Amino acid sequence: MAYHDGMVRPLPRLYTPIPLAEGVQVALERAQAHYVKDVMRLSAGDTVRIFNGADGEWLSEITEAGRNSAMLTTVNQTRPQPAFAGPRLIFAPLKKNATDFVVAKATELGAARISPMITEFTDTTRVNRERLTANTIEAAEQCERLDVPVVDDARRLADILADWNGGTPLICADETGGGAPILDALHGLKIEPGASRETPAFVIGPQGGFSKSELVSFDGLAFATKVDLGPRILRAETAVAAVLTCWQAARGDWRNGGTGS
Amino acid sequence: MAYHDGMVRPLPRLYTPIPLAEGVQVALERAQAHYVKDVMRLSAGDTVRIFNGADGEWLSEITEAGRNSAMLTTVNQTRPQPAFAGPRLIFAPLKKNATDFVVAKATELGAARISPMITEFTDTTRVNRERLTANTIEAAEQCERLDVPVVDDARRLADILADWNGGTPLICADETGGGAPILDALHGLKIEPGASRETPAFVIGPQGGFSKSELVSFDGLAFATKVDLGPRILRAETAVAAVLTCWQAARGDWRNGGTGS
Repeated sequence: MAYHDGMVRPLPRLYTPIPLAEGVQVALERAQAHYVKDVMRLSAGDTVRIFNGADGEWLSEITEAGRNSAMLTTVNQTRPQPAFAGPRLIFAPLKKNATDFVVAKATELGAARISPMITEFTDTTRVNRERLTANTIEAAEQCERLDVPVVDDARRLADILADWNGGTPLICADETGGGAPILDALHGLKIEPGASRETPAFVIGPQGGFSKSELVSFDGLAFATKVDLGPRILRAETAVAAVLTCWQAARGDWRNGGTGS
Repeated sequence: MAYHDGMVRPLPRLYTPIPLAEGVQVALERAQAHYVKDVMRLSAGDTVRIFNGADGEWLSEITEAGRNSAMLTTVNQTRPQPAFAGPRLIFAPLKKNATDFVVAKATELGAARISPMITEFTDTTRVNRERLTANTIEAAEQCERLDVPVVDDARRLADILADWNGGTPLICADETGGGAPILDALHGLKIEPGASRETPAFVIGPQGGFSKSELVSFDGLAFATKVDLGPRILRAETAVAAVLTCWQAARGDWRNGGTGS
């Protein structure tokens, strides 16, 4: 994006897998070094922010900026690591761009775990987990998240359901009109008080929806609730953004003070 | 999308600007004719559905399929035109793909009117209204809508506000944290009973947000309410999908029976 006079320009944020504390040296990935030097035009002595999903966010100074590399040293913690309990998203992989979109939006909208799923009508079974993980990291850097969603390997829907922990509600988007209005369903969810990690999982079918037998199989599961997303047929990626938005707004961290449910 | 055995394959839906009634002949646009013949592999005698935003949806028979053209004849009305009152979306144009995305998602999520807006930090002032309109038509065809959102020419935010009808609530997404939780704000909106067209307008700033003076100007408007979209910084296109989702789920046509508020 372009910055203009008068805009508040936040310090760039970068993800690193290494443990962080005061005075830790961090070597940036090549693409991050390029971003910092060539896109943001920063050099030795400038500062950025860095996070690893576990140790909060750290103001860090650029101590070396070479041709293809850059080195940071952490200075002080700017935000502690919050307790975080986001929902799980289970989705059917789409075309490449749509899958990239789903993963980025799920990260912005606070999913904690992203699980590609193979259903009867799933268009593609090729899932590049490294690519999806790279997308979640980039989205987390941009959206001020302090963690990065976990990305699972693709599994068949039936296998996912066979292993299910019955304490986790499963919310299924049913485009055939068989579900409850989504906010009613979410407000009605019993979530154990204090069980901060008991957030639900949302499952969104592929373009073309779930098969009849898949929809029937949800009816037999005590932990599953089918929800309706209105009279228009949403594309799968829109349905993903919609269910996660409804969760955050009704029960998640978009409410007063973001204290969870 | 690919269709599989067992999938319910809906009849293709096409938009036409001409008035519809029984036995009306409709010449398809060249791109529509290509879609019907070459993508959907239909020919004379096959049926599609057609709508114009005013006269409901009509089952129509393909009566001619030439090299670059196709002709339909309407057979019978399959759905009457519903009364429709969707919100207005006012957004700052983004890069081309992001703008296309915003317009398509706004159509899926039931916006009735889409108004590009120039703000202090808007990246681009070039808005191709024909392109946006083509995107709304394509999205409407795919999402089973019976109308197409109106697309306005781009105007400056100050000019839009100067002309405002004070009876229409304006909901402003404030990424600086100055707003109310969005569902609280929407549930609190007073909408005149029976005034089915009194839906709000949502305004979403560009990447980088509104300027300080723009945010202050909203405070001085009796019809404006600032809302908060949580602790993560959403991209502008995500914020668009989020506010329209919250509206439809809380006060719009995603509730029981879609009867509006």
